[in-house]
Amino acid sequence: MYERDFIEKQLSITSKYIKTRYSDRSGVAVSSKRDINDMLTEVDSAVQGMIVEAIREEFPDDAIVGEESGFDHLPEDPRQRCWVIDPIDGTQNFVRGLLPVFGTSIGFMADGDMKAGGIGLPITGDVLLAARGQGATRNGVPIRVAPTDSLMASRLELDVSYQAHRPEVVKRFGGLICDFGQVRVAGAATIGLAAVACGEADAYVHVGLKLWDHSAGILLVEEAGGTVSRLDGSPVLLSNLTTDLAVSNGAIHAEMLRAIL
Amino acid sequence: MYERDFIEKQLSITSKYIKTRYSDRSGVAVSSKRDINDMLTEVDSAVQGMIVEAIREEFPDDAIVGEESGFDHLPEDPRQRCWVIDPIDGTQNFVRGLLPVFGTSIGFMADGDMKAGGIGLPITGDVLLAARGQGATRNGVPIRVAPTDSLMASRLELDVSYQAHRPEVVKRFGGLICDFGQVRVAGAATIGLAAVACGEADAYVHVGLKLWDHSAGILLVEEAGGTVSRLDGSPVLLSNLTTDLAVSNGAIHAEMLRAIL
Repeated sequence: MYERDFIEKQLSITSKYIKTRYSDRSGVAVSSKRDINDMLTEVDSAVQGMIVEAIREEFPDDAIVGEESGFDHLPEDPRQRCWVIDPIDGTQNFVRGLLPVFGTSIGFMADGDMKAGGIGLPITGDVLLAARGQGATRNGVPIRVAPTDSLMASRLELDVSYQAHRPEVVKRFGGLICDFGQVRVAGAATIGLAAVACGEADAYVHVGLKLWDHSAGILLVEEAGGTVSRLDGSPVLLSNLTTDLAVSNGAIHAEMLRAIL
Repeated sequence: MYERDFIEKQLSITSKYIKTRYSDRSGVAVSSKRDINDMLTEVDSAVQGMIVEAIREEFPDDAIVGEESGFDHLPEDPRQRCWVIDPIDGTQNFVRGLLPVFGTSIGFMADGDMKAGGIGLPITGDVLLAARGQGATRNGVPIRVAPTDSLMASRLELDVSYQAHRPEVVKRFGGLICDFGQVRVAGAATIGLAAVACGEADAYVHVGLKLWDHSAGILLVEEAGGTVSRLDGSPVLLSNLTTDLAVSNGAIHAEMLRAIL
């Protein structure tokens, strides 16, 4: 699929750029958005600019939705061709992480559905790609969710969100923290969703994240054989800019939903 | 200090070995210890063997304490020269992690005190070292804890421990999850403690971990200017094989202890 190949090329370019900037990140300018932990670096802006420029050159009529300024609303017609970009998901980790856990996400929507998506992990160089109905790959090799069939043997990637949501996180996910065999908080939706798609985690949950955080990741999980829903089990609607999310390998989905308060 | 240099040499050797085995880990044999999530791989055993052999050759009269079989008790005389080893801290991450978060820890005790310690992070190649009274370094460059002075602006590395401890973790640390600006769960004590020592996190807490999980990490944090205590603020005693732990950059220590239930 042409759009998937385009995504692959962009992620390869941006991953190299992000890795270079990370290696000398003491000189990177950081500003805050809503609060001190909602960070924006000049690298986020530069990467978004690179991807936007490439899309405008190749697909001049397509809409673009993205995390950084000016791109944070959906096109009026939900069936329009539209690209969904998160230049650096895990900016806090880019700024502070001893082990750098962050990724770049590019999704492509048309006819109201996510048709192609990719996640690039700059430090390891991994590129994960999916096209609707054509499966998912990691560095060109097909990936599948893991067959783990009990919460006790499963690994949960939990997202604790921003501070305002933490009481809700502790209340709703306290049971999951107790029931899952392994619990990790990477602080980046792309990592959590990519891990489920690769079978390196079994589930991922979030109380409220944006389209650009999950668009490519959800497609990866679905094409790798996993299950995607909202926390109450209802479908995720791409027409909502924000959604809560429960993603799993499928085998543990019902047991996981029962443990969410 | 000679023991620190010895640690540096061992970590350099074992990190290369672990990275090689990780890159082809589908062939690594994994067994369970107490339960399904308490994993032991053949690589843990091999790395412990390499370090034990090197210590016996260089320091034949020294005692050795380590995570894997046969080394899990302290010498009777607390003042005896003793090496404390964790071959792979974060074995679950070694087995499953999309971004590999695990490390090797070597500590050296004498006269009842931790005198030298080091943590190796195989994938990034980082080596962190400290000797009592001589500061701490990362790849030879001196490191200091971060000056962050409020929980709201701070990053917490939280350890959720094994499943049996989770209700205690949710109850005691629920307040910390709400109060800290950023919360991460790496699933490896070495990473949490190394991150505080480097200033890439501001605090680390655990309800109960073993001497080999924390010995080198605590010395790193202390030598980098941080504060180490138990969760109730009392001192950590190296004569206990298991302890709870609250570690920070110092500036937020009192505020953090007040938020622990």
